[in-house]
Formats: sequence, C-alpha cells, structure tokens
Amino acid sequence: MESRLLRPYAWALVLLLFIPVSAILEFASPGVPVFAAAGLAIVPLAWFMGIATEEIGKHAGPGVGGLLNATFGNATELIIALFALAEGLQDIVKASLTGSIIGNLLLVLGLSMVAGGLRHKSQSFSREASGIHTTMLLVAVIGLIMPALYVYSAGAAGALRLVVLDEMSIGIAAILFAVYLFGLLFSLRTHRDIFNPVAETPERPRMALRTAVLVLLVSAALVALESELLVGSLQAAQASLGLTDLFLGVIVLAIVGNAAEHGSAVLMAVRNKMDLSLAVAMTSTTQIALFVAPVLVFASLFTAQVMTLDFEVFELVSVALATAVLASVVSDGRSNWYEGVLLVMVYAMLGVVFYLHP
Amino acid sequence: MESRLLRPYAWALVLLLFIPVSAILEFASPGVPVFAAAGLAIVPLAWFMGIATEEIGKHAGPGVGGLLNATFGNATELIIALFALAEGLQDIVKASLTGSIIGNLLLVLGLSMVAGGLRHKSQSFSREASGIHTTMLLVAVIGLIMPALYVYSAGAAGALRLVVLDEMSIGIAAILFAVYLFGLLFSLRTHRDIFNPVAETPERPRMALRTAVLVLLVSAALVALESELLVGSLQAAQASLGLTDLFLGVIVLAIVGNAAEHGSAVLMAVRNKMDLSLAVAMTSTTQIALFVAPVLVFASLFTAQVMTLDFEVFELVSVALATAVLASVVSDGRSNWYEGVLLVMVYAMLGVVFYLHP
Amino acid sequence: MESRLLRPYAWALVLLLFIPVSAILEFASPGVPVFAAAGLAIVPLAWFMGIATEEIGKHAGPGVGGLLNATFGNATELIIALFALAEGLQDIVKASLTGSIIGNLLLVLGLSMVAGGLRHKSQSFSREASGIHTTMLLVAVIGLIMPALYVYSAGAAGALRLVVLDEMSIGIAAILFAVYLFGLLFSLRTHRDIFNPVAETPERPRMALRTAVLVLLVSAALVALESELLVGSLQAAQASLGLTDLFLGVIVLAIVGNAAEHGSAVLMAVRNKMDLSLAVAMTSTTQIALFVAPVLVFASLFTAQVMTLDFEVFELVSVALATAVLASVVSDGRSNWYEGVLLVMVYAMLGVVFYLHP
Repeated sequence: MESRLLRPYAWALVLLLFIPVSAILEFASPGVPVFAAAGLAIVPLAWFMGIATEEIGKHAGPGVGGLLNATFGNATELIIALFALAEGLQDIVKASLTGSIIGNLLLVLGLSMVAGGLRHKSQSFSREASGIHTTMLLVAVIGLIMPALYVYSAGAAGALRLVVLDEMSIGIAAILFAVYLFGLLFSLRTHRDIFNPVAETPERPRMALRTAVLVLLVSAALVALESELLVGSLQAAQASLGLTDLFLGVIVLAIVGNAAEHGSAVLMAVRNKMDLSLAVAMTSTTQIALFVAPVLVFASLFTAQVMTLDFEVFELVSVALATAVLASVVSDGRSNWYEGVLLVMVYAMLGVVFYLHP
Repeated sequence: MESRLLRPYAWALVLLLFIPVSAILEFASPGVPVFAAAGLAIVPLAWFMGIATEEIGKHAGPGVGGLLNATFGNATELIIALFALAEGLQDIVKASLTGSIIGNLLLVLGLSMVAGGLRHKSQSFSREASGIHTTMLLVAVIGLIMPALYVYSAGAAGALRLVVLDEMSIGIAAILFAVYLFGLLFSLRTHRDIFNPVAETPERPRMALRTAVLVLLVSAALVALESELLVGSLQAAQASLGLTDLFLGVIVLAIVGNAAEHGSAVLMAVRNKMDLSLAVAMTSTTQIALFVAPVLVFASLFTAQVMTLDFEVFELVSVALATAVLASVVSDGRSNWYEGVLLVMVYAMLGVVFYLHP
Repeated sequence: MESRLLRPYAWALVLLLFIPVSAILEFASPGVPVFAAAGLAIVPLAWFMGIATEEIGKHAGPGVGGLLNATFGNATELIIALFALAEGLQDIVKASLTGSIIGNLLLVLGLSMVAGGLRHKSQSFSREASGIHTTMLLVAVIGLIMPALYVYSAGAAGALRLVVLDEMSIGIAAILFAVYLFGLLFSLRTHRDIFNPVAETPERPRMALRTAVLVLLVSAALVALESELLVGSLQAAQASLGLTDLFLGVIVLAIVGNAAEHGSAVLMAVRNKMDLSLAVAMTSTTQIALFVAPVLVFASLFTAQVMTLDFEVFELVSVALATAVLASVVSDGRSNWYEGVLLVMVYAMLGVVFYLHP
C-alpha cells in the first residue's frame, strides 16, 4: 500500500472513533450529540466505501468498474434516504436530494475551482463532457419541475389530484431512470472516450479483491447503522437547534452525505486535474437526480405513501438557478478562482434564504 | 422525374386514399373515424405542398424561393389553425402552437439526432446558425411569457384587464412579426452565407412551373377541406377519447401538422446533413412563433374575439424548458445519439404531464 | 485639448442650459416641465463626471484608475436613487435599478450591435470577458429573485415576515457586495489581461489633475441638485402623464441615468471596438446589480424603512429573460446587426408591457 493511500486514512481512522461514540451517546444523551456523532462517523465510512468500490472496479476491468462506481457512488445518500423514508420523513428526504444537487454543483465545484484557481491561473476541461452533464442535469430539472407545476396549477388538494400526482411521479421517475440507463450505455460503452480523454493504462489494484469486498460490506453495514442513529436523532436535533426541514435537508444532511466527494474533487482540482474534479462532482449530481431519486420513488411504493416528485418551489428554483449558473461557468471549458467564488457565493445566498425561511 | 423523387410518392399516394375515406366517413360515422382519416389525409398533402413550394422556388431563383419556403413552410398548420379559430376553438389553436414548437424542438430534432447518431458517432453543424435560431426562439418565448405574466399578476378578471390583454397581445404580435421580417432580410439577404455554408449550385427544377403551381393550389385546397373535417370532428373525437384540450392540441394536432417536417429532418440526419436537419426543424419552429402566431392574432381581429397571447402556464414552462434544453444540446455544434435520446425523453415527460393533467 | 475631446462638448454645453432652465421652471411651473428639464440637464453632467473620472484615473495609474471608474461609473444613478430613497420612493428606486439593468443589456447593447453591424458584417469580442460578465449578472439575478420568492411562498404579510425579509435583504446585499469586491480583485489585479486583451500604452492625461477633480466635484454637486429637482417633480409628472411607477422607473429614469453609457457604447461599436462597447454596457450593468443595489440597501438602514430586495415579479422575469437573451447573443463571441435588432425588440416588448401594466 502506497503512502499517499495511507495519508487519508489518518483522519479517517480518527473519525471512525465516532462510531462507538455515537452508539454510546444513543443511550446516554440522545438528540443533538448522537446526530453530530453519527454524521461525523458516516464521513470516513463513505470514504472507505468509495475506495473499496474503486478497488473492486480495478479487479473487474473498466466496463464493470465504471458500472460499479456509477451504482455505488451515491450509496451513502441512498442508505440515509432509505432509512429516512422508512420513518416517513419524505420532506426531509426530498430536501436532502435537492441539497445534494445544489451542494455538488455550487459548493463542491466552487471550492474546487477556488482551490485549483489559487495555484493555477486558468484551468481547462472538456467542454463536451461538461456540456453533456449539463444537459442531463437540465433534463432532470425538467422532470422535477413538472409535478410541482401540476400541483400549483391544479389548485386545491383533492383525492383525484393525489392519484394523478402519484401516477405522474412514477411515470417521470421511470423516464429519469431510463435517461440514467441510456447514459450508462453512452458513457461506459459508445462514447467512453469523451469522459476519458486520455487512454489510461489500467491501474494496478492496491487491495486484494476479497479485502475490498469485505471493506465494502462492513462499511455499508456501518453506514446503515449510523444512518439509523442519524435519522432517529434527527427530529430531536432539529427541535433543539431550531432548524427548518429545508435547512436541515438541503444544507446539513447534504453536506454529510457528500463529504467524501467534496474531498476528492477539491484534491483533483489542486492537482490541476480539473476534468476529474468536474467528473466527480457532476457525475455525483446526475446520479442523485437520475438514479437515487427514481429509486427512492420506486422504494416508496413499498411504504405507506408514494414519495411524489413535487418539490418545494424554493428547492426547485434553487436547483434550476444552480444549473443555470453552472452551465454559464463551464460553457467555455475553462475555470478560474473567481468563477469558483461566484459558485460559492450563490451557495451562500441560498444558505441564507433556507436558514431564514420559516 | 428521378426515382428518388418517386419513392416518397408511394406512401403518399396510399395516404391520399384517406381523402375520399374521410369524406365518406363524415356522412357515415362522424367523430373519431373522421378525425383520424382527415389527420392521415393531411400528411401527404403537406408533403406535396412542400415539394411544390420547393419547385416553384427553383424556378423563381434563390431569393424569392427562400421567401416562398419561409412563407408557405407552415401553411398546413396555418390553414388548420384558421379553421379552428373560425370555430372559436382558441384554446386548442394556442395549444397546437406550443405543441408545434415543442414537437419540432424535442421530438423532430431528438429523433433526427438518434437516427443520425446510430450511423455516425458524432455529427457536426454550424454553431452560428443554430445560435441565431436559438436566440430568435428565446425572443419569441419572451413575447409569449409576458401576456400570461400580466394575467397572473393583474389578478381577478375585469373588463379593463381584458382590454389591456388585447392591446398587449396585438402589440407583441406586431413586434414578433417585425422580428420575423428582419429575420428574412438577415437570412435571405445580408447574411445568406451563415445558413448556406456551401456555395450551392442552383438545383434544376424537377417539375414545370405550371405543374408546381397547380400541385400547390390543389394541395392547399384539399388541406383546407380536410382541415374543416378535422376541426369539425375534433370535439366529438375529444369527448370519445377523453383527451384534454392540452393533450389534443399540444401532442395530437401538432404531430399531424408537422408530420412532413418530421420525415425530412430525420432523413437529412441519417444522410449526415445535420445542418439541413436542424434548419428544417428550427426554421419551422421560429416560423410558428414569429409568423403563424402573429398572423393568427391579426386574423382573429376579424372574428368575435381577439386571440390573446396568454398561454397556459404549463405550455409556457414547457416551451421555455424545451428551448433551454435545446440551447444546451446545440451549444457545442455537435450532436450524438444520447443528446437525441435526452430530447425525446423530455418530450416523453411533457407528454406524460399533458396526458395526466385534468 | 484635442478636437475629438471637444466635439462632444458642443451638445453637452447646449444641454447644460437646462440647469438654469430647470431651476427657473421649479418656481414658474413645477411638474412635467421641471422633470423634463432636470432629466435633460443630468445627461451632460453625467458625461462630464465620466470624463473627469477617466482623467483622474490616468493621473493615478491603471490600478487606482480602474477602481475609480468602477466606483464612480454609476455615480449618477446612485445620486438620483439616494434622493429618491430619502423621499421614501422605494418602489421607483427599485424599478429604476431593474430598468438600468434591462436598458443596458437590451437597449444599449442592442443599439450598439445594430450601429456596429450596419458598418461591419460581423464583429467579434472576447468570449471569456463576456462569459464572466454573464455569470456575474446571473449571480446578481439569483440574489434578486430569492427575496421575492420568499415573499411569494411565505404568503400573507405579517410582522415576522417583514423582519425576515429585512434580514434576508441585508444578508443578500452583503453577499452581492462581496461578489463585487472579489470581482474588482479579479478584473483589476489577478486577471487584468482578460478584460484588456491588448497591452495598452498608458494614455496621456488631457486635463490637469486639479481641473479634473474640480470638474468631478462640480458635476457631482450639480447632479445632486438636479436629482433633487427631478425626484421632487417626479410624482407630479407621473400624475399628469398617467405613467405607472414601473414604466417611470424602468423606462424613463433608467434612460436618463444611463444616457452617457448609451452614447459611448454605440460610438465604440461603430468604431468596431466591440470589446470596449460590451465592457461599458456590461460593467455598468454588473455595477448596478452588485454595487449600487447593495449600497442602497445599506443606505436605507439610515432611513425609516429598510429597502428590501423583493422586486415585482414583472421586473424579475424581465431581468432574468434579458440576461438569458444576452447570454445567448454573446455566447459565440460574435455579433451582427440582427442580434442587435433582437435585443432591441425584446426591449420594445418589455416597454409595451410596462406601459400597459396598470
């Protein structure tokens, strides 16, 4: 194992201490402390899941490896969301989806461009890859806007309206999922070269396959455990801290669920690998919108209530505007520190609004 | 007459049989069968009108020819819409306008890109031409949004509000028509080269001028006849099939009115002439928004009620989002099968929503 | 003093006559005549302030000069707005802000592209500079949309809502101001070359420093005087002419406040210096949104009522659409007369709507 693989382990091992801490706190002092400890414990586990998935991918070869990364890339968010869904916290789940999208587009990419831009005057990346990601995002945004528009234009609630909304949500989820599957075919098979401009030499695995599978399974199990603690203490924490559903889902949960992506995207940017940095952040975003959201709708069919895709107008406008500002930033295939600052500032404005919104 | 001109005649001649069929059905069994037969009969007639216009254009020389194509290119939609307007079916007329726009941008271009992309890994086209079309569309969208926004923000209906809405619609129609006229001057005179990158050798006409004029007049007369049958049976068909005004106008009428464009745009894409494919679909769209819509407003001044330009919020959002996703797809001057799939999927989502919308 | 500096003085000296005229009219016949005379008197004064600022900048060197231009570039609008704010005319102040943005983006740039395009078939400019300006504008638009969205979604007015709206406006103003400051650092320090593609030789001052400072101070004082007359007669003029707050602020005041920019941007375009023309119009626009608007919010803390950033939905949609159409026009780094016509036509449509809106 090389030292640069070991370095991140240092902080990760420290944060792993929050696993027992959160379990102990659950009995000693539920509420905010458990919420904080479980949130911190998830960060290193997500990181280990990422590494293990990558290692399994190296053993399996590029095609299957890409598929694995695409499917397990947002496993953390998916697990947290499934636990919250089982608790009936649909509004928070939906808020955490929009939060992940906004956070990846604005905070992760913004910080990456700032960090990279402080070292490099101008950084370039593939306009073709970022253009397709932007269009995919736009398609997802359209899918998320339509049900809310239906609710808005259909007026007062009624039984018929709810049935239609369920059908509409399931139909749109199916279409978004199809967009996702076609996207896999496109990016992993027919147009692999767009997303991998350099003909990379296959990397040697740094873990035995058996170890990697074991790490993946143990991490996933621990993420599930911590997610249960996190979701269980969520409402108590919310009450003590006086946070709104929107702020909690959009800002807090989204940062916890995406912490691993944050780290690696910024690291790539500093190393002037802006293509990889963008790929991490944008792939994660399109996965949330085109894979995680539809899967949650399908999963909700087994709960008491369908998770409909009608988001709050604030969330929708935020996602749409984040997509627009990102499209404007990446359209020229180059980035600099100020474009990063602009993205972060938009995130700050949305944070102010979600914090103050009653 | 060459054989490649004859080939499309085969299906066209078969579909022409629906002219007598629709006339007979009108007496035998009005409603859905007449609606279907008249819809099918219009398809080959629109095709013949297109060919005749093109042939007259070849006799008249490039300048006048371009003008003829620009003016008669959407004659079918215009004729159907005028008949529906005379019947007072303003909502359906407006829905068919937005449907034509959405259908051309998403379905026609999407299918073209898929069909072309299955044969060619990547297809390129002029960014300058597609950029100007996109901006023209955006200007039209702005014109269509404003009256609806006025209605929304002016609140409850009143006599004053209606007068203002009429004036606003006429004023905006006049401006959109001016945009159209300036656009003709631009594309046919001062900047002809942008839209015709290759200095084409003038094509030899394949019909005598007299034949072409005759074909045009007879086809137009038959389109008028079938449009009357179509519009006359429309409400009965709507009732039997349980379709909403929106779905009928946006999806069904729009497909009938644009079937000819669909065919030729896809054909061009398969032959890797993506510039022509885009030109057919985008010129048709801007004509609908900048020529057909204003002309209908002016024509409605001779009916009982002005056709105001306040569209349903669903239609407006759909047109705006279709424009945005198209702009994102064409911005890099290249297309592939997946971008086509994305456009078609957006069309599918809008179809689901318009179908379910009560 | 060179002759080309003298030429604009001819018309300016004539317009200066409106200073005494406006003062005399104030006593003789208040209302529309005073309003018109004060409006006309401000135009040459704004021009002199611009020249004086530029001259001081030449003495001070490029860095400080850029800062001066950036800060005093919109001094006229700022002075008029401060007087109107002191009178409690918040709605008109806000309308004049959106009017300045729309006017600069659509009317100034549109006329520039038309004037330049009539002489030059196609004009090119830096995509990088226009791209960053577009993104800055988009960030400002997001900041302006959020408070209005809050008001819309929070429903009925209440004391809590107003407090939240005040806090939100102050928070967003602070963030927009930070965007402005970082933008100065970016454009004047770290990435100066993007906005000054040609390594310019420092121009020789054409005025002594003392003269320039004197001209600046006297002009500013006279602008303040005329602004008081303008604002004082505004409501009388509005009543006699039957204009709405929106039309007055968005169209009339905005044209008066930006007349100087209009002239110089068009002049640059005719001389085929499209980069400078764009820089004048777009820098002025971002300054309004990122500097003048926040400063007015901060200044309003010393008046009876905080100037909140919740704009009318019509204004917001207009600003957002103007930004979108501008982004579409400048995205390819080239302009022609028709793109200018498209911008002016959008302005005309907005003018119709604001004029008719009750």
